[in-house]
Amino acid sequence: MNPIDLHACRVKPDKTMDLSAYPTTPPDALTQEDSTQWPERLHDLAEQLNRLQTILHAGQSRGLLLILQGMDTAGKDGCIRSVFTHVSPLGVRAEAFGVPHALELRHDFLWRVHAKTPAWGEMVIFNRSHYEDVLVPVVHRDISKATRIQRLEHIRHFESLLHDAGIAVVKCYLHISKQEQKKRLQARMDDPLKHWKVQASDFDDRKKWNAFMRAYEQALQETSTEHAPWYVVPADSKAYRDLFVSELLVHTLESMKLVMPQPQLKLSDYTLR
Amino acid sequence: MNPIDLHACRVKPDKTMDLSAYPTTPPDALTQEDSTQWPERLHDLAEQLNRLQTILHAGQSRGLLLILQGMDTAGKDGCIRSVFTHVSPLGVRAEAFGVPHALELRHDFLWRVHAKTPAWGEMVIFNRSHYEDVLVPVVHRDISKATRIQRLEHIRHFESLLHDAGIAVVKCYLHISKQEQKKRLQARMDDPLKHWKVQASDFDDRKKWNAFMRAYEQALQETSTEHAPWYVVPADSKAYRDLFVSELLVHTLESMKLVMPQPQLKLSDYTLR
Repeated sequence: MNPIDLHACRVKPDKTMDLSAYPTTPPDALTQEDSTQWPERLHDLAEQLNRLQTILHAGQSRGLLLILQGMDTAGKDGCIRSVFTHVSPLGVRAEAFGVPHALELRHDFLWRVHAKTPAWGEMVIFNRSHYEDVLVPVVHRDISKATRIQRLEHIRHFESLLHDAGIAVVKCYLHISKQEQKKRLQARMDDPLKHWKVQASDFDDRKKWNAFMRAYEQALQETSTEHAPWYVVPADSKAYRDLFVSELLVHTLESMKLVMPQPQLKLSDYTLR
Repeated sequence: MNPIDLHACRVKPDKTMDLSAYPTTPPDALTQEDSTQWPERLHDLAEQLNRLQTILHAGQSRGLLLILQGMDTAGKDGCIRSVFTHVSPLGVRAEAFGVPHALELRHDFLWRVHAKTPAWGEMVIFNRSHYEDVLVPVVHRDISKATRIQRLEHIRHFESLLHDAGIAVVKCYLHISKQEQKKRLQARMDDPLKHWKVQASDFDDRKKWNAFMRAYEQALQETSTEHAPWYVVPADSKAYRDLFVSELLVHTLESMKLVMPQPQLKLSDYTLR
């Protein structure tokens, strides 16, 4: 199949961004014919991811943080489920960040996320993250512009701290169209097994769609750095979204040039009897 | 008694500092006569500290972090014990940072300290801190100059994150002379009840006294900022050291203009029967 163009979906630092210029659907070049190969390709990537994660775990000298953001129904949960199918929970940890609880609110906004960052040897997925603190309160006008700018600056410094400590930081905005969200919310309302996922805030946030897009644009353009880039993942197609994120993770881990550590024993000295 | 000159002992940002220019003994102006008043003054400050801490705890909107650093025997433990005599453990928490353990070493150097920072309503004392990571490895030449500079920058950003979240950061280097350390180490060796405090590293570090002074000078001058200043506390006299730190804390808390929150009930509506 045609290679996935990660680079085209990477947010360039310091460029004023326009989310509507980024596709929510797979590129036209990927024809109907190609899409029949996607399941096999995804399976192949999942196995590569497992192999790379084993080396990361064995080496204990680097870590990886995947940050997933997106509007409701953008597919964060689904993406985590499919991309990491072949990876052992021993080496991958998913951390969800909901509405901050009382003790979290009594600390700086990075306190709760810093505590959950990957140790060397770990892959960690943030299902929502510190970016919520520059999205929701911006849309709801709960923080001043000065506070927003200050938080974005703290985020850049925080992510560069992680980078300097050997943690690769990869950030994905799962990009769906407003029409696609309508379809998915309707599907949740129609399926009793999905009712638990429907919340009043889904409807409120949908009404503020444009304000959320503006907040995302600001956040992404201010924090897409060389060492912690943002990718706008076309996410109207679940299969393509999963392919994209898998490809990105494999690419990132490959570029870390991880190697298996030397054995701790001189194995030739040992004989099994 | 003469007021304690906090300002003179504050490290000015961006000035090249020379620790030997800072006194280890109380100012001459504080005569023998004055020192007889010290116990009473310390007691008075401890009560003020208790009063201010109660308002901090009740208000739940600000916090205070006191960082204590110093050579072995400089008096960190003793200072914590005397300054906080009148403060309830409900509102003050001491956190000691020893040699990092295995999991801590697999994270960035600020991970373990960030987790222990004060919540709103709390006073926290760091007995040693993240500054160890720009002292010991510098003296032992375990990190490059580039890493040292990078860490100092991360420290500045980290402390400004705390500041922006409403945490007052106060940093004290307890300054003793090499001769005073000799007396104190000897006293520990002579007193069986203090033997547990004597470690081989005390002797090694003492041999590297000058290298430690250079590392402290670099760290203090690079990280003494407007919102997280360093104070060089004259610490050859234990009583004066405790007075100084108490005065500094009271001064800091006073300048935060803390106020008791309004009662949650309209008290006049309630009658006890």
